[in-house]
Amino acid sequence: MEGKMKAVVKHEREKGARLQTVDIPQINDNEVLIQVKATSICGTDVHIYTWDEWSQSRVNPPYVFGHEFAGVVVEKGKNVTNLEIGDHVSAETHIVCNQCPQCLTGKFHICENTKIIGVDTDGCFAEYVALPSQNIWKNPESLSFDVASVQEPMGNAVHTVLAGDVAGKTVAIIGCGPIGIMAVGVAKAAGASQVIALDLNDYRLDLAKEMGATTVVNSRNENPLDVVRELTNGHGVDVVCEMSGHPIAMNQGFKMVTNGGRVSILSLPVRPVEIDVTNDIVFKGITVQGITGRKMFETWRQVSGLLQSGQVDVEPMITHHFPLEDFEKGFELMIEGKCGKVVLHP
Amino acid sequence: MEGKMKAVVKHEREKGARLQTVDIPQINDNEVLIQVKATSICGTDVHIYTWDEWSQSRVNPPYVFGHEFAGVVVEKGKNVTNLEIGDHVSAETHIVCNQCPQCLTGKFHICENTKIIGVDTDGCFAEYVALPSQNIWKNPESLSFDVASVQEPMGNAVHTVLAGDVAGKTVAIIGCGPIGIMAVGVAKAAGASQVIALDLNDYRLDLAKEMGATTVVNSRNENPLDVVRELTNGHGVDVVCEMSGHPIAMNQGFKMVTNGGRVSILSLPVRPVEIDVTNDIVFKGITVQGITGRKMFETWRQVSGLLQSGQVDVEPMITHHFPLEDFEKGFELMIEGKCGKVVLHP
Amino acid sequence: MEGKMKAVVKHEREKGARLQTVDIPQINDNEVLIQVKATSICGTDVHIYTWDEWSQSRVNPPYVFGHEFAGVVVEKGKNVTNLEIGDHVSAETHIVCNQCPQCLTGKFHICENTKIIGVDTDGCFAEYVALPSQNIWKNPESLSFDVASVQEPMGNAVHTVLAGDVAGKTVAIIGCGPIGIMAVGVAKAAGASQVIALDLNDYRLDLAKEMGATTVVNSRNENPLDVVRELTNGHGVDVVCEMSGHPIAMNQGFKMVTNGGRVSILSLPVRPVEIDVTNDIVFKGITVQGITGRKMFETWRQVSGLLQSGQVDVEPMITHHFPLEDFEKGFELMIEGKCGKVVLHP
Amino acid sequence: MEGKMKAVVKHEREKGARLQTVDIPQINDNEVLIQVKATSICGTDVHIYTWDEWSQSRVNPPYVFGHEFAGVVVEKGKNVTNLEIGDHVSAETHIVCNQCPQCLTGKFHICENTKIIGVDTDGCFAEYVALPSQNIWKNPESLSFDVASVQEPMGNAVHTVLAGDVAGKTVAIIGCGPIGIMAVGVAKAAGASQVIALDLNDYRLDLAKEMGATTVVNSRNENPLDVVRELTNGHGVDVVCEMSGHPIAMNQGFKMVTNGGRVSILSLPVRPVEIDVTNDIVFKGITVQGITGRKMFETWRQVSGLLQSGQVDVEPMITHHFPLEDFEKGFELMIEGKCGKVVLHP
Repeated sequence: MEGKMKAVVKHEREKGARLQTVDIPQINDNEVLIQVKATSICGTDVHIYTWDEWSQSRVNPPYVFGHEFAGVVVEKGKNVTNLEIGDHVSAETHIVCNQCPQCLTGKFHICENTKIIGVDTDGCFAEYVALPSQNIWKNPESLSFDVASVQEPMGNAVHTVLAGDVAGKTVAIIGCGPIGIMAVGVAKAAGASQVIALDLNDYRLDLAKEMGATTVVNSRNENPLDVVRELTNGHGVDVVCEMSGHPIAMNQGFKMVTNGGRVSILSLPVRPVEIDVTNDIVFKGITVQGITGRKMFETWRQVSGLLQSGQVDVEPMITHHFPLEDFEKGFELMIEGKCGKVVLHP
Repeated sequence: MEGKMKAVVKHEREKGARLQTVDIPQINDNEVLIQVKATSICGTDVHIYTWDEWSQSRVNPPYVFGHEFAGVVVEKGKNVTNLEIGDHVSAETHIVCNQCPQCLTGKFHICENTKIIGVDTDGCFAEYVALPSQNIWKNPESLSFDVASVQEPMGNAVHTVLAGDVAGKTVAIIGCGPIGIMAVGVAKAAGASQVIALDLNDYRLDLAKEMGATTVVNSRNENPLDVVRELTNGHGVDVVCEMSGHPIAMNQGFKMVTNGGRVSILSLPVRPVEIDVTNDIVFKGITVQGITGRKMFETWRQVSGLLQSGQVDVEPMITHHFPLEDFEKGFELMIEGKCGKVVLHP
Repeated sequence: MEGKMKAVVKHEREKGARLQTVDIPQINDNEVLIQVKATSICGTDVHIYTWDEWSQSRVNPPYVFGHEFAGVVVEKGKNVTNLEIGDHVSAETHIVCNQCPQCLTGKFHICENTKIIGVDTDGCFAEYVALPSQNIWKNPESLSFDVASVQEPMGNAVHTVLAGDVAGKTVAIIGCGPIGIMAVGVAKAAGASQVIALDLNDYRLDLAKEMGATTVVNSRNENPLDVVRELTNGHGVDVVCEMSGHPIAMNQGFKMVTNGGRVSILSLPVRPVEIDVTNDIVFKGITVQGITGRKMFETWRQVSGLLQSGQVDVEPMITHHFPLEDFEKGFELMIEGKCGKVVLHP
Repeated sequence: MEGKMKAVVKHEREKGARLQTVDIPQINDNEVLIQVKATSICGTDVHIYTWDEWSQSRVNPPYVFGHEFAGVVVEKGKNVTNLEIGDHVSAETHIVCNQCPQCLTGKFHICENTKIIGVDTDGCFAEYVALPSQNIWKNPESLSFDVASVQEPMGNAVHTVLAGDVAGKTVAIIGCGPIGIMAVGVAKAAGASQVIALDLNDYRLDLAKEMGATTVVNSRNENPLDVVRELTNGHGVDVVCEMSGHPIAMNQGFKMVTNGGRVSILSLPVRPVEIDVTNDIVFKGITVQGITGRKMFETWRQVSGLLQSGQVDVEPMITHHFPLEDFEKGFELMIEGKCGKVVLHP
């Protein structure tokens, strides 16, 4: 498709971004062109926007960023057989190599050569985005574009929570950003008997409550270890989902998990973390899992199942909607932590 | 404790049972005496009552039968350290040997030398029952005796459904006796995206619906394979819980499961079943699990968690209550399939 | 590549096959052309050769059959980036659709739309074979072509044996065809404390012995259940790998496995099998696995690792070598069961 | 049994120990008295002997220490039904509470209230030891007392190595004390394609070589990350067993494991360890396991199986034998790292 489109461009190696008019991207034989109907802001986008250390070392402006979206296929390459014009779609954000040992054994989400849409390639804060058909996930037309857009981060929540059993068990969610809040809903939907949500931000703890947390703990006001001990007859929780990235909170996670429990870490602490390996990992016989991305496409199937059945309702945590032009309002809310998920409409 | 009590006694090697006055059982150093507050009728009890082939070969009248109950500890042996007089309790029904390879590796539920309470030893259709402290499960006082009594069969449902993942997946429950109906509730609570319940009995399918089935299928009126195919885009369900014991239904289970799926069998077909191993097991790469009893006490913890959190509400399937004296009414309802769970009160 | 080549062609819908001169196959953009250096005869090839019921319903003569091989890449399509001319290679035999739920979740080996090389497409009993690059497995040059050729069936053995734990456990291999014999070697290499091999054919039991079986049982002469009981202190084996396809042997497998054990079935019984589900599966709490193909490419990595490290030496079970022209000698040996693996050299 | 016996007593809150004459211990109804035939020195014993910080905070002299042994039952309590006078036995070192959630769910090895023989109770550096029958493991008479004595630490090696798959995979063993050296043998026996042993001590690396290491790396002389990278085509090892307790070595372990790999930690670093959670755990999607004790008695069964079948031969790493009186020679060798396993004979 020829023509111009609006896009939010990371224009310079500095804070901020710009709404610009750019060329509609051209597709190759294995790609599709998608008209973006809804695109949501991820924490990663905020890092790029604020131009932190990580983004300085990783991204190469100028380019279009953004990677969470839902849209409609408007053009397809000649090798694409699994999609039709008009299909409602979202996309897995990891573009994988198909050749490393991980890809060859079906663990695509930890491909050694992953490229991330909107980080390493042009993304979806735009009217159109071009993507490999291998990355596309078909949505039912009954799913709203807004909800469909947050499947990708919900996939992180699902991947983390369902990386082991939770039915009839006690689960702590440490860190209630949008993914943490969705993790609360997923744990609840998957039968957790207690879902304890921890954060320092009351706004987000309220959202966690709304998503089904049985207890919310503002760690500024209460000692999380005391609360967990009391709620679990002194034994600790069966599962900890660490989504805060704070070294203190992470260590509290190791201390609040019961012997033989599971600590699944999705967060990305900015610096190495001091961990009491002997007492908190070895003697307790726990399992620590690093969680990244979404299992392709096992996690996507679970996300679909949970959303379409109504087992998880993410609407309460989609708190703000803006036209693409007002992306800066969305970024400011994210920076302040005064929102659940923010969705932009191109 | 000295004295007499009322009990339902399997009195003769013939159909039926009798309410009799018998001695209150004496406990040994490792046992407790429990006053029974509620006791529910299991399909196994019906086999013993109707004096079918299996019970003729297994049980030795006269003895007190019954094994599902909730009550209060009224006396304890001198070696018993984990229980107090007044504790609300139920019991795991398997008395295990602690010495076979299975017991030595923590798989008590498949002990090679299992004895079953109320089958191989005196049971709980009585005012009092004496049991080894190792078998006792403590209940919170907030749990009603009626609900506490059905934890044992609910444990079968939990053991079956949670023998693998269900969150975000499609699950078929074949056979909607009380355990099947509870399995519907458990699958729903554990995040299944679809719970398809199948039976020939509309009364029980209605209960299944009430417990959360997303589709109910009377296999007399509809072809279950067609229904499942349509509900799953032709791929089949991820999980089958076989609780019917009917060879035709069981084989439908094998055919309705998707490639790589799981078939967990709790039922006890009376005769060997012809199975198309090549097409239904091998080429499909499925996993078939035999499920017996409850993991001791992993399953009990999950049951407790699901009940106490309200994730599963079993009240709708406890349809009838009688005084112990009226046990025959309960057995007749069970034989006719015109009930969920029947609870007797001594 | 233009030209003619020798090939063993399933020429007619009748018993037998013919050596013919046919066109060298043409590759498309995603394929490679391989010069076949060694190709081994599989049981499936024997079915096609003898023109049994299954092959009559499945294959469409005339076509080149055969699917186990090792060779050298001599030509590559323009989209092929993971291979070079001169690479030593073998191939995974399943051509998968990449679009069904199984493929989308990394379980390619149970793709709903699998095509099998040499069954549904032209195979490798020929001087050259054309195959999709996605199916190719690169071999180290240090691996002999003969050994490299049997990696595919060894993959079946590895997939079956390693579908659960075996180290320090007791394993029975029922059926000592070439895959069964290799399964013996794999179980031994993976640390099984006992490997009990069962068959009716002493020639093959001798090979099983050579591959490391700790006990061999000719079920014609001894009662396998008695032998297993005695070898396991009456408890039964931890793992059964069923590779015979005989209903009696399969049922012996169910009876010889210990409570909570694993029965992994790779064989393809020609007719439904009567199984005592109640006593042999449910009460014992065992797990039955249908095993098909090889995990792509998890199993291939394990096979490579076991071969290259010398942990498994398959040389003793490669008993016969013939030029491609003498394929009929190989087939006759296979029919008589007087061989391990037969390798043909084009 | 009345009388006196020789015992190595931790006599004072200071370095060292004393050979003393003490009372033969009396058994209760649930215990057995065992005549100790062989008892081996563990790293834990060395901590107690050298009176390090940990032992100062944990043990209460005077008492008999030591916990690895083999012997013969000479007396049994009246409740003991699973053992006979004359039985050859060893013992699991953890005395568990049978009542915490871990015990109730069969995870005895991580009991919240574990007491350790020879640490919290009187041990086996003596002519006799009294132990609960629940802790006893029966040995075949064909197993030598020396080998039987090292089953307990071999259990640690087995628990660590077999906490996931190793057949056909690459395994690094970091730290070649006696347990590390046995881990090498176990990994090899369980089918690892490469077993890379790392330490700073050439004496122990030689033992590791003898036990089957395919590569030994003295990390003083070579960069372990470079070596591993080269041996694994740049991908890293599938499994790391961390048995060194050194923060640098542990972090090398995190860096040398492949994406999606497993790091099983048995060691007890004396201080919290700084770990690059983001890059080494989360982005790599690895699993970290804390390993403590031995699964009761799953691990013991595996140990027995591996020893009795000859799959693992631990003789080469039992390097020194002394009469009990010469215990100080054994401790000195352990402190210097100039030995494999040291066995004392009372």
